Amino acid sequence: MSVEDIARAARAASNMLQTVSSAQKSSVLKRIKEVLSERRDEIISANNQDKAAAQKEVEAGRLSASLFKRLDIEGKDGDKFETLLQGVDDVDRIADPIGQVTLARKLDDGLDLFRVVCPVGVCLVIFEARPEVVVNIACLAIKSGNAAILKGGKEAARTNRVLAEAIQHAIATAAPTEGCQSRFPETAVQVVETRDEINALLDMDRYVDIVIPRGSNSLVRHIQSSTRIPVLGHADGVCSTFLDASADPAKAVHCVVDAKTNYPAACNSTETLLVHESVLSTVFVDVARALVATGVRVHADERSLAAITAAGILESSDNAAALVSAAKPSDFGHEYTDLDIAVCVVDSLDAAIDHINAHGSKHTDAIITEDAENAQWFMRRVDAAGVYWNASTRFADGFRYGFGAEIGVSTNKTHARGPAGLEGLTIYKYYMFGSGQGAGDFGAGKKQFLHTDIPLDDQVRNKFVL
Amino acid sequence: MSVEDIARAARAASNMLQTVSSAQKSSVLKRIKEVLSERRDEIISANNQDKAAAQKEVEAGRLSASLFKRLDIEGKDGDKFETLLQGVDDVDRIADPIGQVTLARKLDDGLDLFRVVCPVGVCLVIFEARPEVVVNIACLAIKSGNAAILKGGKEAARTNRVLAEAIQHAIATAAPTEGCQSRFPETAVQVVETRDEINALLDMDRYVDIVIPRGSNSLVRHIQSSTRIPVLGHADGVCSTFLDASADPAKAVHCVVDAKTNYPAACNSTETLLVHESVLSTVFVDVARALVATGVRVHADERSLAAITAAGILESSDNAAALVSAAKPSDFGHEYTDLDIAVCVVDSLDAAIDHINAHGSKHTDAIITEDAENAQWFMRRVDAAGVYWNASTRFADGFRYGFGAEIGVSTNKTHARGPAGLEGLTIYKYYMFGSGQGAGDFGAGKKQFLHTDIPLDDQVRNKFVL
Repeated sequence: MSVEDIARAARAASNMLQTVSSAQKSSVLKRIKEVLSERRDEIISANNQDKAAAQKEVEAGRLSASLFKRLDIEGKDGDKFETLLQGVDDVDRIADPIGQVTLARKLDDGLDLFRVVCPVGVCLVIFEARPEVVVNIACLAIKSGNAAILKGGKEAARTNRVLAEAIQHAIATAAPTEGCQSRFPETAVQVVETRDEINALLDMDRYVDIVIPRGSNSLVRHIQSSTRIPVLGHADGVCSTFLDASADPAKAVHCVVDAKTNYPAACNSTETLLVHESVLSTVFVDVARALVATGVRVHADERSLAAITAAGILESSDNAAALVSAAKPSDFGHEYTDLDIAVCVVDSLDAAIDHINAHGSKHTDAIITEDAENAQWFMRRVDAAGVYWNASTRFADGFRYGFGAEIGVSTNKTHARGPAGLEGLTIYKYYMFGSGQGAGDFGAGKKQFLHTDIPLDDQVRNKFVL
Repeated sequence: MSVEDIARAARAASNMLQTVSSAQKSSVLKRIKEVLSERRDEIISANNQDKAAAQKEVEAGRLSASLFKRLDIEGKDGDKFETLLQGVDDVDRIADPIGQVTLARKLDDGLDLFRVVCPVGVCLVIFEARPEVVVNIACLAIKSGNAAILKGGKEAARTNRVLAEAIQHAIATAAPTEGCQSRFPETAVQVVETRDEINALLDMDRYVDIVIPRGSNSLVRHIQSSTRIPVLGHADGVCSTFLDASADPAKAVHCVVDAKTNYPAACNSTETLLVHESVLSTVFVDVARALVATGVRVHADERSLAAITAAGILESSDNAAALVSAAKPSDFGHEYTDLDIAVCVVDSLDAAIDHINAHGSKHTDAIITEDAENAQWFMRRVDAAGVYWNASTRFADGFRYGFGAEIGVSTNKTHARGPAGLEGLTIYKYYMFGSGQGAGDFGAGKKQFLHTDIPLDDQVRNKFVL
C-alpha cells in the first residue's frame, strides 16, 4: 500500500468509526487482550530479535543504554507484559466520552441544538523505542473512535509489526455485538515504518487531523516545524519549583527532592529551583543539603552558591564539593533530564513568576509556601498547564490525575493542555433538529429565538451514545 | 514601538489579565460604550475620510462595491453605530467563563486537583474592511481575559485607529472596582497597520498563542500556511443540503431557498444540492423551480439537468433558461458566495455522505428527510462542525446558537469547532493543592491514590472566579 492509500484507509476507517457502539469498542478491546495473550511467545520472540540487533548497536556506540532498556517488552518475570495486558483492561474500563451531549438548547419550538462529543478523526502517532506504546495508543484510539496510524522506533520494528498484526487480527475476529449498525473497520489501526512515510503523512492535512509525537525534544521539534496539522505534545519539560518567603522547610525538602530525583528523565521533573532571598540561609540550605546528599548536581547562581558555601555543604561529604558548581545563563530554561538542578535567587514572588514565564516551558510549576494569597497569585499568574501549591511537579501525569490512560502531556495553549487522556482525542459537533425552518424566518418583526437551555440530565446527556 | 515591543506588551498584558476580576472587565466594557458614544462624531468623521478615499478606489476599479459597503460604520440614520454600541452591552451581559472549575478531584487527603478555565493568552486577529470588528473583538478579548493585537483592512485604517484609541482611553479611565488585585493593562488591546507587522507576528509563537483571521478565503489560506501558531477560523464555507428519498417537499423548498438566498455571500450558505435519485422528478422539481424563480443560477449535473428540462422549468420564465447550465466537475466543492448552486444526483444516502466528506469544507451540512434513522446516520457520518436535520445551513452562527457574540466559525477539528464564542478564546489549567506530597509517596506498598470526584456544585464551580 502506498502511504496515500494508508492515509485514505485511515480516513475511511474514521468515517465508519462514527457509528460504532461502546459495546463494539469494548468487544474489540477484550479481543485484543486475548490475542496478545495467545501470541505472547511470538511477540517476545520478535522482541528478542529486536533486542539482539539493538545490543550490537549499543556495543558499537550507536544506541544509548537507556533507549535499549526501553525496548524490552517482557520485563523481569514477565511483569512488563502483564502491565501491558492490564493496560488494555484499564482503557476498556474508562467511561466512553463519545456521543455525550455538552450543550443542549431550544432555539425555537421544533428547532433544537445539541453539542455532541465526537472523535477528532485520524491521529498520527510517532514514538521512539518503547513498543508497548503500539498497544497503548491503539487501545486509546479504539476507545475514542479515532483511526490511528502509528510509527514506532526502528529499533523495535519487529516487535511493533507483530503487535500491530495481533491488533488487526483482534479487530477482525472480535465477537459481534447485538444490534451494531457498523462493522468495526480493520484499518482503524495501521503501522508505517519509514521516515519517508512520516514526512509524506505530515503533508496530508486532508487525511490526518492530529499528530501526537512522543519522544525526544528533537523528535517533537522536528514534527512541530514540519506540518500544518495540529500537534499535541511537548518538546520541553522545564518545570520550576519556587521556595517562597514562608515555605515550610519539611515540605520544601520533600517536594524538591521528589521533584528532582523521583525520575529525573521525566518531563515533569523540576529543572529549576527558584529561591526567595529571605529563605536563602534557612529553608534553601536544608533543601540544598538534601539534594547534595542524594547526589544531585547543583548549578547555583552567585547568591545561592554563597549560601551553600557559608552553610558548609561543600564539606558535608567526600563528593559534595564536586556536585556544586556556578550556574551559567544557559542553565536556566535547560532540561537536564538527569540529576542536575539550576538554582536562581529572586527578590520577590513576582520575580519568580516572571522567571518561570520567561524560561519555563508552560508544563508544570510549583510554589512551596504557607501563604495562601501568594499561592493563589502564583497559580493565577504562572502560564503553565499545571500550577501546584506544596506538591511535587512529578504529579503531572494522566494516571496520577485519574484519567486512566494518557496519550501525552500537552504544553499547547489550545485544544488540550497538560496530561491528556481520551478527552484529548475528542472534539464535538453541533446537531440541529429542525422542522423545516429557514434563518430568514427570524429577525425584527418576525420570529424571535427562544435560546432556552435544555437541562443536561442523564437522559439528555446520553441521548446520542450508541 | 517595534512589532516585537507590541508582542511583548501583549504578553505582559496577558499575564496581568490573569488576575483581573469579572467586575473590572465589566467596568471596562461599560466605559468603552461611554467613550464610543462620546467620540461618535470623531469616529464617523474618520470613517467618512476612509469612505472618501475608498470611493476613489472603487471608481478606479481597485476596490469592490461590496467591500466599500462594509466600510461604513454609521448606517442609515446611525443604525449600524447603534448596533455597535448594543454589541458592547451584549458582550458585557454574557456569563464570564474565566475561573470556572470543570473538573475537581481528590487525589489524596490534602491533595486536590482542579481544572480551571483560563484565557488562551494573546490573540492576533486579522480582518478585512468592516471596522466595527475592532470593537467587537476588543470586547470579546477583554471579557475572556485575553490580550488582543488587531489588524484591520487598510481601507478602514483611519476608523480603526480612532476606535482603538477610544478603547485604550476607556481602559485607562474605567471606574476602579473595589478590592481589585490588578490594574487593567492598557496594552490589552493594540492595533498594527502593516502587512510586514503581521508577517513578523506570525513568526512570534513565543508571544502569540492563537491567530484568528476573518475575511476572504485567500486571506485565511495565506495565514494558515504562514504560521506555526494555531489558527482558528475557516477558509472555505462549502455547505451542502441533501434531499433524501423521503424529503418533505415544503420543508425542502423552504430550507434550500433560505440556505441559498438568505445571504449568499455568507460562509454558511448552501453551495451544493445533493438529490436522491428517487425524488428527482418530484421534490427536486419543486426545489429547482423555486430556486430559478428566485433568480438562482443552477449548475446541474446530467441527470438533474434532464429532470429540470423534462419538468418544463426552462420555459417557466423569460430568463429561466439562462439560469440553468450544465455543471462542470469544478462546481462541486466550489464556494460561489453568490446566487449559484451546484446540483448532483446520488443513488443513496451513503453516496450523499461520501460526496459531502469528499467535497465539503467540514462547515455545516443538512439533510431534508422524514426518516429519523437516515437523519441520525447522516448526522453521525458527515464530518462537519454542524449537521442539521430539516433546517437551513444558514443557522450556523454564534448569535443564532445563543452564544451572544462570535469570534468566528471554525472548521478545525481541534480546540473549537463551528461558531465560536467566548469559549473559543479559553483553555484550562490544572491547579493542584497539596500539603507537601511527593509522587514517590505513592505506589505499590505505599500510599494509593483516592481519585474521588468532588461534586461540581455552584460553590466548587465558582471557587476560582474573581
